[in-house]
Formats: sequence, C-alpha cells, structure tokens
Amino acid sequence: MLISKVIGTTVSTIKEPTLEGRKLLILRQTDVDGVPVGKPYVAVDTLDAGIGDLVLTAHGSSGRQTDITKNRPVDAVIMAVIDHLSVLGEVTYQKD
Amino acid sequence: MLISKVIGTTVSTIKEPTLEGRKLLILRQTDVDGVPVGKPYVAVDTLDAGIGDLVLTAHGSSGRQTDITKNRPVDAVIMAVIDHLSVLGEVTYQKD
Amino acid sequence: MLISKVIGTTVSTIKEPTLEGRKLLILRQTDVDGVPVGKPYVAVDTLDAGIGDLVLTAHGSSGRQTDITKNRPVDAVIMAVIDHLSVLGEVTYQKD
Amino acid sequence: MLISKVIGTTVSTIKEPTLEGRKLLILRQTDVDGVPVGKPYVAVDTLDAGIGDLVLTAHGSSGRQTDITKNRPVDAVIMAVIDHLSVLGEVTYQKD
Amino acid sequence: MLISKVIGTTVSTIKEPTLEGRKLLILRQTDVDGVPVGKPYVAVDTLDAGIGDLVLTAHGSSGRQTDITKNRPVDAVIMAVIDHLSVLGEVTYQKD
Repeated sequence: MLISKVIGTTVSTIKEPTLEGRKLLILRQTDVDGVPVGKPYVAVDTLDAGIGDLVLTAHGSSGRQTDITKNRPVDAVIMAVIDHLSVLGEVTYQKD
Repeated sequence: MLISKVIGTTVSTIKEPTLEGRKLLILRQTDVDGVPVGKPYVAVDTLDAGIGDLVLTAHGSSGRQTDITKNRPVDAVIMAVIDHLSVLGEVTYQKD
Repeated sequence: MLISKVIGTTVSTIKEPTLEGRKLLILRQTDVDGVPVGKPYVAVDTLDAGIGDLVLTAHGSSGRQTDITKNRPVDAVIMAVIDHLSVLGEVTYQKD
Repeated sequence: MLISKVIGTTVSTIKEPTLEGRKLLILRQTDVDGVPVGKPYVAVDTLDAGIGDLVLTAHGSSGRQTDITKNRPVDAVIMAVIDHLSVLGEVTYQKD
Repeated sequence: MLISKVIGTTVSTIKEPTLEGRKLLILRQTDVDGVPVGKPYVAVDTLDAGIGDLVLTAHGSSGRQTDITKNRPVDAVIMAVIDHLSVLGEVTYQKD
C-alpha cells in the first residue's frame, strides 16, 4: 500500500456505467512526514476521506477487493485513513 | 487510475483476433493541470473519447473489467472522460 | 499497452516446460516516433513479428489472455504489430 | 519480491472492515547491504516482524495468497524475515 | 519478462509456511550484454539456476503459474536460463 495525501476531486459525466455514484479522489504519494513526493493519481474512496487526509491506497486487483469496487474497472482504492505514522519510535505524522 | 491526455491513434492489421474492432488510443499521463508528463502508452477506448480529451485509465487486470475488454489481452482501458479536476478547492482543469 | 520495438531474440535450453516452443523476443519501449527509450524486456510473440517491427505489448495477467500464453508463467505478450501511429493528426510512424 | 527494512508503524481508526486487527508496517526497499534506497510503503505483517528487521515482501495479487490477506484490499505482505543475504559468495547482511 | 543476473542467495528461518523448501535467489535486471543495471530483487528458482547465470523472470500473478509457486505469496519466478541473447543479428550474450 502507498501512503498518500488526498489533494482533490475529479468529475466525469461520461464514464463506465459500473462507476456511477463512485467518489473518485485525486491523491499524491507522500513520504512518512506526509509531504507529497509523487505524481497525482486517482482512487475510489469508500471511507469518506476528506481533502488533506493522509490515507493508505491498495493498487491493482487488490483495489477491487471491496464491496464497492468488485468487478469494476478501478485499480486503486482508499482502504484506510491514517491517524498517525511512527518511524523508529518517533511520530512523524499526526492527524489534526 | 491515471489522469492522461488522449494524443493519438494506432492502426494495426496484424493483431490478436479478440482485439478486432477495438479502438486503441495513444495517451500520456498528465499532472492536475492536464499537461503531459509521462511516456506514451496505449489504452482501449470504450467511451468514444476524442483527441485532446483528459481521461482516467485503469490498468492491469482492472482494465479487463468491462464488457469490451473482458478476457482480452489488454492492460489499460479508458474508464472516464474528465469534465473537471479540482485541487485544494481550485479548478485546475476544465473541459472545453 | 506499451509501444515497443522488437530488437532481438533469446534462446534457452533450460526453461519452464510449459514454455516449450514459445518464441521469446527482446523489446524496448519507444516514443511515438518509434525511437527506443526504455530498458530491454522480453515478451512472447504470437503474431510472427520481425526484428525492427513496432508492436503493442500487454503486461501482467493481461499477457496471459491468449491461447498461447494461458496458464503459463509469462507476463508480457505481443498483441499487435503497428502499421502506423498518428499523434495530433500527424503520422509519427509508418511501417515500411 | 523486494528486500525491505521495517522502519515504522501506521495506525488507522477508519479502515476497510476486513482489515480489522491486521498489523500494517512501514517499510523501505533496501540494497543487498540492508541500506534503504526507496520510498516508504506499507505492508501487512503476518510474521511478527520487528522494527529494523530486513524482510521480503510480495506485491500485487501475490500479497493476497496468505490466510490473513485473502480477499482483502491489501497489495503487499511480509512473507519472510531475512536471516542473511549473500552476494557472489560474500555475506552482505546478517541479522543480529 | 525481465533479463536478470543471479547474484546471490537469501536465507530465512521465519517465513510463510507455504514457502518451506523454496529456493529464493537475489537478482538484478541487466541490459542485453548481461551487465546489471537495476536494484536487487528476489525470485523463486524452479530451474536450479546458478550464481552468475542470466535468466528470465516472470512477475506478478504470472510468477504463480508454475507447480512450485501456485497459490503461494511469491511475485517473481525464474522461468528460463538464458543460453544466448542476440540483438539486431549480433550475439550480445553467450553463456559460458
């Protein structure tokens, strides 16, 4: 799973029918301090994550192992909202 | 999913029989402003996307979760045409 | 799918029994002009592609969606030989 | 599989229900001496690995081939704790 | 598949039970001359490859399409030992 920050939203009128009603968020991978380091990508949100949240995303076929994404053409899903990260005994990120 | 721009088309006479009649478009990954940043790749189009459109593509086995791509040797599919992208509350891309 | 150029061949005596008789070609990913830009990789050829041809390759489990690669430990397959590529209305590659 | 070092932990209250009780560790890929070289990622721990351990992680659908990860939206799992690594006949890493 | 060189071995006492007795080798991706260019990774060996051998490895779920790796948390397998590589008609690598 990747540690990523939710940075935005995407809206589409024309889409695969099976995606109707799915919330698609824009994310960027971060380091352990929550600072974005990667290119933007899009994941399905099943947990009502908010802009600015740090989350874990599962990719590939693993992104289809939820009731909301099963059998749909999605390859990334938010599977946890992070409360805090700790590296070598020190807290590096803490949700507000 | 990746945010990508449709930049071109590809034509093949010799191909896997199961791909007959499938539209294959050339895309490049973009940033949240729609500016291409990545190498070209090819995806199956099931939504009649046009050159210049910004789209979302699903990859790997997720690219086979549509009626048009099921059981076919394709690893990328366009699953939405983007109307607009919004980052931290600001619109960064708007379809014409 | 990736746009790639066929650059060579690989010969192996010791291999997975299910690969017996499969043609394994060396390829490199290219840009839209057909100029190689990536590291070499190997794909199964089911279309009798030749050295110098530009082709499309499907990767991961998608590479096993052909009669010749089903249930075999291969993760890349040539699924089309490219006739021409066109970007923003201009032909960028044309097969001889 | 990747050779990675366990560097931290992640705690989440809001998560996919099927992940309840799963231990999620932060890792970084290393070279053969155990020196971290890659970006942080998160894997499910099924082996009670500790901070500082060098481990092997399996990715993608392969990360779901354990009793603890089957049918869950996880794409990385620790599948071995490394005792030692040997390169060209020389020990390059030895667990304390 | 990737062209890679076998450079070492890894030993683990604590591991997924289904991996008991599997030989895990350290490899690095190479160019067509057999010169290592990538980071180390680990694959299951089913062909009794030796240190210094150039091999082809299959990745992801394709790595589980052998009797020895089926249903096991492994994402890379050696599926051929390379005798020689030929690029544009010239032999670039020849096994001793």
